[in-house]
Amino acid sequence: MLKKKEKYQVAVVGATGVVGREMVSILEERSFPIDRLIPFASHRSAGTKLMFKGKEITVQELKENSFAGLDLALFSAGAEVSRQYAPLAVKAGCAVIDNSSAFRMEKDIPLVVPEVNPDAIGDRPGVIANPNCSTIQLVVALKPLHDKFRVKRVVVSTYQAVSGSGQKAVLELREQSRNILAGKAIDKTVYPHQIAFNCQPHIDAFLDNGYKKEDMKMVNETKKIFADDSIQISPTAVRVPVINAHSESVNVEMAGPVTAAEVREALDGAPGLKVIDCPEKNEYPLAIDGAGRDHVLVGRIRNDLTNPNAVNFWIVADNLRKGAALNAVQIAELLLPR
Amino acid sequence: MLKKKEKYQVAVVGATGVVGREMVSILEERSFPIDRLIPFASHRSAGTKLMFKGKEITVQELKENSFAGLDLALFSAGAEVSRQYAPLAVKAGCAVIDNSSAFRMEKDIPLVVPEVNPDAIGDRPGVIANPNCSTIQLVVALKPLHDKFRVKRVVVSTYQAVSGSGQKAVLELREQSRNILAGKAIDKTVYPHQIAFNCQPHIDAFLDNGYKKEDMKMVNETKKIFADDSIQISPTAVRVPVINAHSESVNVEMAGPVTAAEVREALDGAPGLKVIDCPEKNEYPLAIDGAGRDHVLVGRIRNDLTNPNAVNFWIVADNLRKGAALNAVQIAELLLPR
Repeated sequence: MLKKKEKYQVAVVGATGVVGREMVSILEERSFPIDRLIPFASHRSAGTKLMFKGKEITVQELKENSFAGLDLALFSAGAEVSRQYAPLAVKAGCAVIDNSSAFRMEKDIPLVVPEVNPDAIGDRPGVIANPNCSTIQLVVALKPLHDKFRVKRVVVSTYQAVSGSGQKAVLELREQSRNILAGKAIDKTVYPHQIAFNCQPHIDAFLDNGYKKEDMKMVNETKKIFADDSIQISPTAVRVPVINAHSESVNVEMAGPVTAAEVREALDGAPGLKVIDCPEKNEYPLAIDGAGRDHVLVGRIRNDLTNPNAVNFWIVADNLRKGAALNAVQIAELLLPR
Repeated sequence: MLKKKEKYQVAVVGATGVVGREMVSILEERSFPIDRLIPFASHRSAGTKLMFKGKEITVQELKENSFAGLDLALFSAGAEVSRQYAPLAVKAGCAVIDNSSAFRMEKDIPLVVPEVNPDAIGDRPGVIANPNCSTIQLVVALKPLHDKFRVKRVVVSTYQAVSGSGQKAVLELREQSRNILAGKAIDKTVYPHQIAFNCQPHIDAFLDNGYKKEDMKMVNETKKIFADDSIQISPTAVRVPVINAHSESVNVEMAGPVTAAEVREALDGAPGLKVIDCPEKNEYPLAIDGAGRDHVLVGRIRNDLTNPNAVNFWIVADNLRKGAALNAVQIAELLLPR
């Protein structure tokens, strides 16, 4: 919880990255009570100008003493930066919301999605972790179902946008697409294989069990967020040539029989969710519609014809917003004294 | 079965379409014993020139009496054309292999994937149906698993290329991509929504149960091909901005416990399959590698951590070749007297 103040000194670490920029813009958009916003980045990006509330602010180089006198820091500069600087920020008395994977699975660090487990924040000062993008949109959709029907097992295949890999990946997709359309050779820098006009069943590093880190984030983070190890997730994370917003094809088995109609009713109007499910009018969630929106969109809700306890549906969310920056700012809002 | 001859009179109906062109080229590539190849198309496309065995052949307009004296006709001109002309071809004594959905689920029509159910062809003259592209690659991968472990339930999410919707869809993806990269407005003709840089959980028409025809093709065709109604398929068919070759994320539950290693062994070297599964070297099936190849590629084989009887894997196949034209020509090869 932040101390009671009218306005706060707020840092965004990694302010020039795709998520950092979203954080700055969402803090403004949601009128977070900010006295001064200090954007930090590496030496290389220091000096960059950003706009905040109509004024130009200059990105500063992150240093060990950067956090003196600050109230809150939102980190999104990768796990290494978080591991090095988040403890320093906490020591300086600053609340930290960390979008990296550095602390997510640490026992004493809350991992929070405000629509799902706001109470996990507790009263302790320190770091609060922001879950991975693919997890966040999934748990927002699972929450009302777990409350009402108890979720037993989820088989999920993702269709993840390149923005999740940062600005360079967006440029790589655009550049590769342009070259392929022109019949030219392509360069590969961010991804090991061509991403334009291709799907890659590969996100983050492979582990010994044949899963990728990205797969296992969905498995482990979901259990932690629900504080329920009984929820089983069978994941396949796939990168697709979409610029922004992740889609997920989700099969959910509940503890007992459910119908698509009951599931639709439970999802409709639940926090953070918007049902778009009118196939006869060609209305269903699309990545291009999810980008720039706050809600997790859900549709194509239908009975699993092979299991009376299960349904299939399709969810879409802006991975930079609800999947990262917005969720972090929502956590920050929970830290404001009421 | 075709009559014993040295070479045959073979028609390709829909010869100017993406699948029809593949049929012509695969008939040549596999040296099917052809005396004369007659390409047919609608009035609009008649007169188009195609190359076959180094010679130019002229596409003829399909007419009711087109099949007199022909031995074999491969149809890929849509269900309506098949419904109208395939019976005329059969009446004229011609064997028909039909790539449309027109006859697939008819009780007396064999639905054949040569690696899976070659014996379904039988001795009766008439129409043999070629399954849908998304089904073919799935059943080729399920076959060795069903033989060895008995497949009970499959949850499959597809990543389907636009070539499955024909040449116009390929042009639409390219044109939309080009315009978006240039910051211009896009046109939509083939698909109800933008397909460039987007995923659509929508292929073919929606049905009352919330599934699409494309979803239900996987469900019903798989049961028919295996002649086993106990195989349960829970499908989600999705169109992605890939030019050619479908990918599928597949979760398969067997009748008893299996390991990824046992599944890999069963798949490795099975007819029509090629295992590419070396994640530590970034080797796994990719749409861009599947295009132009005959095999169904399978990789990312791993234990389902939520079910000891299940595994997850990823399959890729050229939907125009194994998913359509190659499978049809393989059926034709089965009709040759031995």
